[in-house]
Amino acid sequence: MTETPPTTALIIIGNEILSGRTQDANLAYLATGLSALGLPLREVRVIADEEAAIIDAVNSLRRQHRYVFTTGGIGPTHDDITAAAIARAFDTTLHRHPEAVRILSGFNPTTPERMAARLKMAEMPVEARLIDNPVSKAPGFQIGNVFVLAGIPEIAHAMFDAVKATLTGGPPILSRTISSNLAESTVAADLGEIQKDFPATEIGSYPYFAQGHHGASFVVRGTDLAIVTAAVVAIVAMVRKHGAEPLE
Amino acid sequence: MTETPPTTALIIIGNEILSGRTQDANLAYLATGLSALGLPLREVRVIADEEAAIIDAVNSLRRQHRYVFTTGGIGPTHDDITAAAIARAFDTTLHRHPEAVRILSGFNPTTPERMAARLKMAEMPVEARLIDNPVSKAPGFQIGNVFVLAGIPEIAHAMFDAVKATLTGGPPILSRTISSNLAESTVAADLGEIQKDFPATEIGSYPYFAQGHHGASFVVRGTDLAIVTAAVVAIVAMVRKHGAEPLE
Repeated sequence: MTETPPTTALIIIGNEILSGRTQDANLAYLATGLSALGLPLREVRVIADEEAAIIDAVNSLRRQHRYVFTTGGIGPTHDDITAAAIARAFDTTLHRHPEAVRILSGFNPTTPERMAARLKMAEMPVEARLIDNPVSKAPGFQIGNVFVLAGIPEIAHAMFDAVKATLTGGPPILSRTISSNLAESTVAADLGEIQKDFPATEIGSYPYFAQGHHGASFVVRGTDLAIVTAAVVAIVAMVRKHGAEPLE
Repeated sequence: MTETPPTTALIIIGNEILSGRTQDANLAYLATGLSALGLPLREVRVIADEEAAIIDAVNSLRRQHRYVFTTGGIGPTHDDITAAAIARAFDTTLHRHPEAVRILSGFNPTTPERMAARLKMAEMPVEARLIDNPVSKAPGFQIGNVFVLAGIPEIAHAMFDAVKATLTGGPPILSRTISSNLAESTVAADLGEIQKDFPATEIGSYPYFAQGHHGASFVVRGTDLAIVTAAVVAIVAMVRKHGAEPLE
């Protein structure tokens, strides 16, 4: 697992996100956790519940990133096609994973029809390893460097937390924010110079409007605490040079 | 503009989204507006503020979709590289757009440094047509079938509204939701049959937990009101068959 850069991609599978009906609530959670693990998220794709779209995204991204996460499409209904599509992406077949069958059969006696629908959630690529679902039982799975999570945020977050310890990342990404009531155009030239002085950091500038007031937040990200701190010191001095004070 | 399907892609350009610092607030707004225009959003990519990533995403998606929208990276600071990257994607050059220069020079006298930073926001591909920004003046632009919007939601939404009337879509996408307190596994078989009976619709099933209660929402999308309505009627009957009542 060292041949690809220590970066991660996320594939959000779901017509309900693309239609605007549902607001994604998994990206930020995974992004924050992955930064701390030194596996920064470098690309996210939101795609439809369509086999070709899933295969294309999985096969493109799993070769470019150390890990790929997917969310959505692993429930019991006809529109849940993620497991089958991922089996095809890996050129393998689905089977009923024995341990998943045990988990899904083990709660509440029910009708044969309901049980058949539940057992659809045990269908996984033959090489799949289960990901525990402490919320609603039905497991996710891992195949190769791809982790297949549920779409419901509470479950997706718990599944991510369940696999975090198995991931091998680079140094954690440190992030520091300095805000000010300065306009971006006031600081643009100086901030560009600071970015040049600290090429091992990534400095972002994000304008905001809050309480009728314009300002900008400057975010320094990097893996070396001394360098990140030095860039922060330079930005604080720059803010003061322009007659403002850094804000919390 | 009829050679590509009436679908749309969105490219969210921004390290702040990928890091989890900022929650996107543009996808759902554009998705809803585009559905109404018969231009459903079919893919979203969230990418870094990196030239190669922008060029790759723009050139891949503008050939697959009737329209592509981008958000982010058109401010005055060093990390705002969207306009330059899109010029390269279209194999053309940047210039200072005369009307953009006029707009950006026209407010508040200022220092030469600030004016230089502001005028960076007038640098656009030579073929660009301006998109009005009623919020903070600095315009977006259109080149070919690509619309380049700001990242700040208030501005992105206003820019989208400003160009909506110029888009040519298919029939509007109608969407109807039926919720129930039934488990997905209870309805999975019947719902799959209803999807087969109404292939001109797209039926999604979305489980939820609310107020300690499990349930599922069924969403029917399509362009033909009679067919969408017939699918809704079938789902309502199916919900009642399982001893539940449709919920608002």
